[in-house]
Amino acid sequence: MLSDRWYSSHVKEVSVEESLELLASRPVGRVAYCTLDGPVVLPVNHVVEGEDIIIRTSPHTELGRRLVKGPVAFEVDDFDEFNQTGWSVLVRGTAELDTFELRPGDRPEPWAEGYRPMVVRIRSRLITGRRLLPA
Amino acid sequence: MLSDRWYSSHVKEVSVEESLELLASRPVGRVAYCTLDGPVVLPVNHVVEGEDIIIRTSPHTELGRRLVKGPVAFEVDDFDEFNQTGWSVLVRGTAELDTFELRPGDRPEPWAEGYRPMVVRIRSRLITGRRLLPA
Repeated sequence: MLSDRWYSSHVKEVSVEESLELLASRPVGRVAYCTLDGPVVLPVNHVVEGEDIIIRTSPHTELGRRLVKGPVAFEVDDFDEFNQTGWSVLVRGTAELDTFELRPGDRPEPWAEGYRPMVVRIRSRLITGRRLLPA
Repeated sequence: MLSDRWYSSHVKEVSVEESLELLASRPVGRVAYCTLDGPVVLPVNHVVEGEDIIIRTSPHTELGRRLVKGPVAFEVDDFDEFNQTGWSVLVRGTAELDTFELRPGDRPEPWAEGYRPMVVRIRSRLITGRRLLPA
């Protein structure tokens, strides 16, 4: 028998504006892309620019090779284990090499070692967010 | 000019055994599936059973409808913003309805409100994990 809790957290959709604030509030998100073997999800630190997500990688990584082909998703979340509450935001869009002039501070500094000169811009097509609120 | 930090965190692959421990150490992960419009990534609480991931959802959600068709991925991570260190584990596999006998405590209790009777088992095909260690 499944013993459901007698209370559960409420789900509430949040606006695009609030979603963008939430996206920028955490330094790390997860970028996802599809392969013939299914989806791949990898964490990466990011910055938000307008409605776009900017990440950095190396052109020699799987991520770097895959990103600029086809649609991608970017997810950020934060949950409180004790209260079973939190929020998540999902960006769906396409990735492209960012050819904008690079300004120090405007681009994420890679956390991981290795030369990661590839600046990737994820152009948002759809931004959805939801909060899991206390019962 | 890109002003890379003069030190960076080291990347270290971890074993499947350690990856499974890390997967079980956090209550929430992210399940990903592919659609014609690209990947979708959604957070969900989970439990680990052997090398499989067990989650619960409703058959009436997009997640419920999509999950049992084609390959999926499940990602768990934990990062320290200050030290820029942490770890991530990615499970790639296929999802199926879990028809095993349900035992209370063996299955995740949904955090979100709503009837979620669908127990989904993600059968691991490939488990990879890595740590981002201090410089």
